[in-house]
Order: sequence, then structure tokens, then C-alpha cells
Amino acid sequence: MPEAITALSEALGRLPGIGPRSAERLALHLVQSQADDVRRLAQTLVHAREKIRLCSICGALTETEPCALCQDPRRDPALLCVVERAVDVFALEKAGAFRGRYHVLGGRISPLNGVEPEDLRIAQLESRLDGGVTEVIVALSTDVEGDATSFYLARRLAGKGAKISRLAHGLPAGSGLEFADEVTLSRALEGRRELTP
Amino acid sequence: MPEAITALSEALGRLPGIGPRSAERLALHLVQSQADDVRRLAQTLVHAREKIRLCSICGALTETEPCALCQDPRRDPALLCVVERAVDVFALEKAGAFRGRYHVLGGRISPLNGVEPEDLRIAQLESRLDGGVTEVIVALSTDVEGDATSFYLARRLAGKGAKISRLAHGLPAGSGLEFADEVTLSRALEGRRELTP
Repeated sequence: MPEAITALSEALGRLPGIGPRSAERLALHLVQSQADDVRRLAQTLVHAREKIRLCSICGALTETEPCALCQDPRRDPALLCVVERAVDVFALEKAGAFRGRYHVLGGRISPLNGVEPEDLRIAQLESRLDGGVTEVIVALSTDVEGDATSFYLARRLAGKGAKISRLAHGLPAGSGLEFADEVTLSRALEGRRELTP
Repeated sequence: MPEAITALSEALGRLPGIGPRSAERLALHLVQSQADDVRRLAQTLVHAREKIRLCSICGALTETEPCALCQDPRRDPALLCVVERAVDVFALEKAGAFRGRYHVLGGRISPLNGVEPEDLRIAQLESRLDGGVTEVIVALSTDVEGDATSFYLARRLAGKGAKISRLAHGLPAGSGLEFADEVTLSRALEGRRELTP
């Protein structure tokens, strides 16, 4: 196979979720596409990377500074939702259930991987609490490191005048009991809510 | 979501085999990658498209003119393998079982889709038969249009001094009878070979 195709295929294969066979198929498709289309794709790629930065306030991906969410006067500044990664903001926005503001931590505490509290945007989070935040909703992953980070935040932010809550743990929507693991089931039981007729 | 991310995600989603969710995941990954890596990927993309052309002799994808396969003196010029698409050359080369030269048709005859014999590289194929080709191996898809194109080629190339053959039809390697459809089984029966002990 010509070297230029192999090189492209290898580059595509380094992207997440693209195995060697799809990378090769994509490379072969691209070298046989209209040259203009390929140039446009390459420009879109570089343009997107150059335009997108992290919002200096919340840490979300944005083209503007500060981001549209931090600027939006209709979002409740008293509610702050803490997420691990910038992409988590989009997941919550798609759900459309949250009307406050965000704070991206940039990861979770993970001593094994060398991630200590000071590597995350926790100091920035603390300083945001001075501005009239009444509730901090911690929305981290529900695994061991996510839980440990949530508890760390709860301890560290205690006494700053804001209530600290976390997302409910329980059964995911549209799934049966037989698909839930034991931890999920225990948490769903623990967090049971009264049914009022 | 910022417009630059949406635009990139849409552009990626137009590639074959990339659905809307993977396109979005890729776009989010790319805008958070090192700017240098993204620029390099874009360059590799444009470079590959600019470097790759179709060989003027066989029609395969190549960086050189003519392609490495047409130039290679160790390849038997008396054997010509006819394939539909440029990528089919790579599939056969990977199998490593063919040591002759190739001819890419550029498609198959398909009146319903407006593809007539003159839209394919059949005249070029005929002119190549003047140069001492002793066998033309027709290696097209084994569906209705592929078969019709194979028979058309057999008729049109008859009497040019070259034997016309086609790839064997039968059971694919590593598969059981229960996975073969009726057409495959009929062809496998029809093409049965004597077992010599």
C-alpha cells in the first residue's frame, strides 16, 4: 500500500474508538474523495482546535471568553454543578434538567495516577463559593475514585455556606433489575423514595 | 455545544462508518488534543489526498506513475487480474497469492445506476491484451451485477488470444455449512474438486 495511505491510516488509528481496520477503510475513502472535500475537512479540524479553549471561569469547552453558559443571565448563579470533564457539561446540557452554572474539575483525585487535589480546579471552585452560591451539586463518576473525590469535596467545601449534594445513585432509566449490578441495586435500595399516591 | 465542535462533528459524521455519536466523541477528543497533533493530522490528511493518484496503466491507487506493481519486473505481465475498485488490489495483495498485474475497472456494469460498459476502463483493458497477456482473471463481486459484468467481459475479450477465468466461488475459509446461504452452497457444489488421496 502506498506510504501516504499507510501514514494516514496510522494517524486515524490513534483516534479513540477507531481500530486498525476502520482506520484503513477511512484512509482509503479519504484518498479517493474530492480533494476539495478533504482540504475542507482538514481546515474544519484545525479551525475547531484553534477556536476552542477552556472557559476561565468554569473550565468548559468554549469559543467565547467566558463561555455562553457563564454569560447567560438566565442561568441561576446560586447553583453550581461540579463535573469531572469538560464534555460532561454537554451531557448534562443535553439532559436539559439543570439551569445553574458549571464547574469543571479537570479530573478526579487518583493518587495511583499521581493526581492530587492541587492538580484539579478545586481552589477555583472554592473561590467561586464566595459569590452567593447556595448549593454545590457534585456530579462525578460513580466509581471508587469518583466517590472518594466527592467526599473530599464535601469535606473541603463544608462550612462555606453552600449546601453540598450529589447526583442520585440508582437504576438507570429503561433498564430492568436483571441488568443492574449489586452495587447499583444496593444504592437504589438505600436511596429509595416514598411513593405518594 | 460551541459551533466549531458541532461543525467538526458533522464533518466527521459524513465519513463512512462513523455515526453521529462517534463523530461527536471524536470531535470532542480532537478539540481537547494537543494543537500540534491536530495540525499534524490535518496535514497528513491533505498530504495523503494530494500524493495519491490513480496509476495510468492499471488504475490502482499510487504515489508513483506508473504504480509500484506495474513497474515491478518480478510481476508476471502475462497474468492480468481484473478488479472493480482500486482498494480490491490491496485486498488481493494482502492475500499474497497473485503474482501478476492488475487492472481496475472502476466499477461494474449497472444499467439501473446508469453505469454502462463505456463508463468503465474496459477499452484500456482491451488494449493491454495486445501486450502478451495469456490469462485474464476476472475478480469481481459475486453478486448479480458482478456476475453480469464478468460474463460481459468474457464475451468482449474472447478471441483476443488470452484465456479468461474467474475466481472460484464456494465456501469461505473457516466457516461451517450452516452459515452459508443457498447460492454459495450451490456454487460450492457445482465447483467441487476431486480429492486425490
